[in-house]
Amino acid sequence: MPLPDNDDANRKPLPAAFVAALADRFGARFTTSHGIRAHHGHDESHFPDALPDGVVFPHDTVEVVEIVKLCAAHDVPVIPYGAGSSLEGHILAIRGGISIDFSEMNKLLAVRVEDMDAMVQPGLTRKQLNAELHGTGLFFPIDPGADASLGGMAATRASGTNAVRYGTMRENVLGLTAVMADGRVIRTGGRARKSSAGYDLTRLLVGSEGTLGIITELTVRLHPLPEAVSSAVCAFADIDSAVRTVIQTIQLGVPVARIELVDALTVSAINRYSKTTLREAPMLFFEFHGSPASVDEQAQTVQALAHDHGGMDFEWASRPEDRSRLWAARHDVYFASLNLRPGSRGITSDVCVPISRLAECVAGTRDDIAASGFIAPIVGHVGDGNFHTIILVDPDNADEIARAEALNHRIVERALALGGTCTGEHGIGIGKQEFLVAEHGAAAVDTMRLIKQALDPRNLFNPGKVIPMTEA
Amino acid sequence: MPLPDNDDANRKPLPAAFVAALADRFGARFTTSHGIRAHHGHDESHFPDALPDGVVFPHDTVEVVEIVKLCAAHDVPVIPYGAGSSLEGHILAIRGGISIDFSEMNKLLAVRVEDMDAMVQPGLTRKQLNAELHGTGLFFPIDPGADASLGGMAATRASGTNAVRYGTMRENVLGLTAVMADGRVIRTGGRARKSSAGYDLTRLLVGSEGTLGIITELTVRLHPLPEAVSSAVCAFADIDSAVRTVIQTIQLGVPVARIELVDALTVSAINRYSKTTLREAPMLFFEFHGSPASVDEQAQTVQALAHDHGGMDFEWASRPEDRSRLWAARHDVYFASLNLRPGSRGITSDVCVPISRLAECVAGTRDDIAASGFIAPIVGHVGDGNFHTIILVDPDNADEIARAEALNHRIVERALALGGTCTGEHGIGIGKQEFLVAEHGAAAVDTMRLIKQALDPRNLFNPGKVIPMTEA
Repeated sequence: MPLPDNDDANRKPLPAAFVAALADRFGARFTTSHGIRAHHGHDESHFPDALPDGVVFPHDTVEVVEIVKLCAAHDVPVIPYGAGSSLEGHILAIRGGISIDFSEMNKLLAVRVEDMDAMVQPGLTRKQLNAELHGTGLFFPIDPGADASLGGMAATRASGTNAVRYGTMRENVLGLTAVMADGRVIRTGGRARKSSAGYDLTRLLVGSEGTLGIITELTVRLHPLPEAVSSAVCAFADIDSAVRTVIQTIQLGVPVARIELVDALTVSAINRYSKTTLREAPMLFFEFHGSPASVDEQAQTVQALAHDHGGMDFEWASRPEDRSRLWAARHDVYFASLNLRPGSRGITSDVCVPISRLAECVAGTRDDIAASGFIAPIVGHVGDGNFHTIILVDPDNADEIARAEALNHRIVERALALGGTCTGEHGIGIGKQEFLVAEHGAAAVDTMRLIKQALDPRNLFNPGKVIPMTEA
Repeated sequence: MPLPDNDDANRKPLPAAFVAALADRFGARFTTSHGIRAHHGHDESHFPDALPDGVVFPHDTVEVVEIVKLCAAHDVPVIPYGAGSSLEGHILAIRGGISIDFSEMNKLLAVRVEDMDAMVQPGLTRKQLNAELHGTGLFFPIDPGADASLGGMAATRASGTNAVRYGTMRENVLGLTAVMADGRVIRTGGRARKSSAGYDLTRLLVGSEGTLGIITELTVRLHPLPEAVSSAVCAFADIDSAVRTVIQTIQLGVPVARIELVDALTVSAINRYSKTTLREAPMLFFEFHGSPASVDEQAQTVQALAHDHGGMDFEWASRPEDRSRLWAARHDVYFASLNLRPGSRGITSDVCVPISRLAECVAGTRDDIAASGFIAPIVGHVGDGNFHTIILVDPDNADEIARAEALNHRIVERALALGGTCTGEHGIGIGKQEFLVAEHGAAAVDTMRLIKQALDPRNLFNPGKVIPMTEA
């Protein structure tokens, strides 16, 4: 793992002419104050802080071009910053440089109801977008836990609980405006639902974590608000029975909107945290979207499948207040988990495997956790084969963090051996670069590196992230 | 437009040592016979033939690596060849070189029923795959008109009538094995349903038309065969009313599997060709997939929407023989159209626009056609905003072809002005390169070119296709 370099004393200071130019151009929207830099020097990961040398708050694409050109002229790294909610150190300024904060670039530029798309600036968060869509009959379904910015979600190829039905940012970004390392602006994709016109630069930039281009506008796909929604929960004797139920649900083509798994330890954590009395067994949480008749039919189909696999305490709800009650337990998982060990911080794994290997992967992970002595609840977007392990660590205990990382490595290695990926939705950042070769092979990673070198030959765009590069 | 160079007399012959090496290694599976070369020198487009200098029939990835390395050593272009059904000259050897024919590399390598995916060699066709899937309860939905090879479909980012429900090759290729220009083999993507691990090389190669890498294996997504299927047809007073019905169907979230538009001229052609007595008015063809109850509900919802827009003669069918009868008319469109002018060949446009602009785009196209004097039926995958114009030309009349191309240009320019794409599913090939800049802008096309130069610096992979390059 590349070690974050946060030694301000050893860092080359920003060139005075560069600072003067940014200050002159952006006034109070450019700062080198320690407080603002410190705010931009950490995300939700456990990696040590790495402060940028300055922070700038642009308002539009043209201003981002000016920043990028100034940085290029002075050899200064550029790090895009959305909501700071990334989990793999994406926004840490490990080589110094300027953090571009998009919080003042958060306008909804257009909603096209008939085409079910919206054009947004990258700083708009997913919740802000959905609030703005109120009354249109449309919504944006991608829901990582945090209220992340849409630019950041595109940059990390984020997803969440709805991906089994609505896809990830890969499927829901129709086009992008991006500033490239030479300061040119490209517009990718388009508003047509499909196209065979040239290389898919949209999908290349989605998931590139700010290393190939800086996203300054996005066109995202919207979806009709379902006419009816219902939810259900069901407990199982073991994880395998729960996962069998999931596999059959997907195979039957039931268009389920969400299927979430929590393990028995997590239910126990929820009971302690939320004063509930749920059966302390693996549970599935379902949500169904559609017409009233379709939603009933989906729920009945899934209930029958769950019954075939020994499902217990099946409960469903279609009134909003009842649905909220059922899902409250799922939503509380992260804080309920941290509460299992007060003062702890979570090191979160994010593996995703073919669904046929999910039961094996979860069971092996469970055994690894037991052997490690850590408390580590498991919760997953199982319709996609994706699950998280929240390894609870004392953030001040380096030895413990090292052991937790070793556990995390074992979890990832198993997922890779089962044909999976080291990250379903969080990204590579600085924490998972070593897995990139294990997952894709040296030739594929070399291909990624050739692309990075071609598009950012001086390695100034979020350097040190995603692809291990030979330093310039 | 780069002019195809098919002047054998002016073409540099293949180096003797190269021919000897290929013959030695591949025996009868390598040929320079004129008959075989001629077969590989044309596709379904109207472009002049351009024969490769030789054709080789590999059996696996290792053999493709050998071919690519030999070609690289002797500076010989390489053109992947699937079923020869491309519509934009993709497989024409306009710079000479070796055609790699994948017809003997057409094995189904694995079907994973639980994970609903299949690994295939690129020469397997979509119909072959679906035949092999018989009995699994799964199917592969992407259906371009031709029985194309899956490798070719990935290379052109193909789709077809089911894309409105099941997506295109972009959404249905999970991972690839590809031989790169340096002879290295990369494996992209994976079998997990989602991943945030590094740059999306899968989506970069899908749609790259053999210019970045040669696909030697694909993992594709399969879908459950619907429990029930029903179809419907409905006539409308005008195209706008039909398109309004489509927009509302999509906006309501009806999970329709197919929505196809044919214009009145096309219905007239069908009536003449198939001896039917359909009302000669714009028509929509629908197909619904799901549970029996869901399919009924979808059809009823759509019938009500159609009625609101003056839909006439609404007819639906759920028995297979009745569905076949309804869809026969749609399936016959291409030949029925050619029959409007015996001896003609079709120049096919493939524009795709935001659905809100579809009615305007179709109406303007209709007017352009009327002004041109050409017979040119319109048929479209309107749920995606995609439609084709089949301009009927005398293939021996160069002036007429030039006028048809001018008409095609006007059709594309309108689609671009309406926020659309020059090609929804056919690709760029040699015929649409001039539109690439108009659609994406010079900076985006330069970015594509940088990627091409980085991955194929000697421009040996399908040279002259997709991106206009400065010649090496």
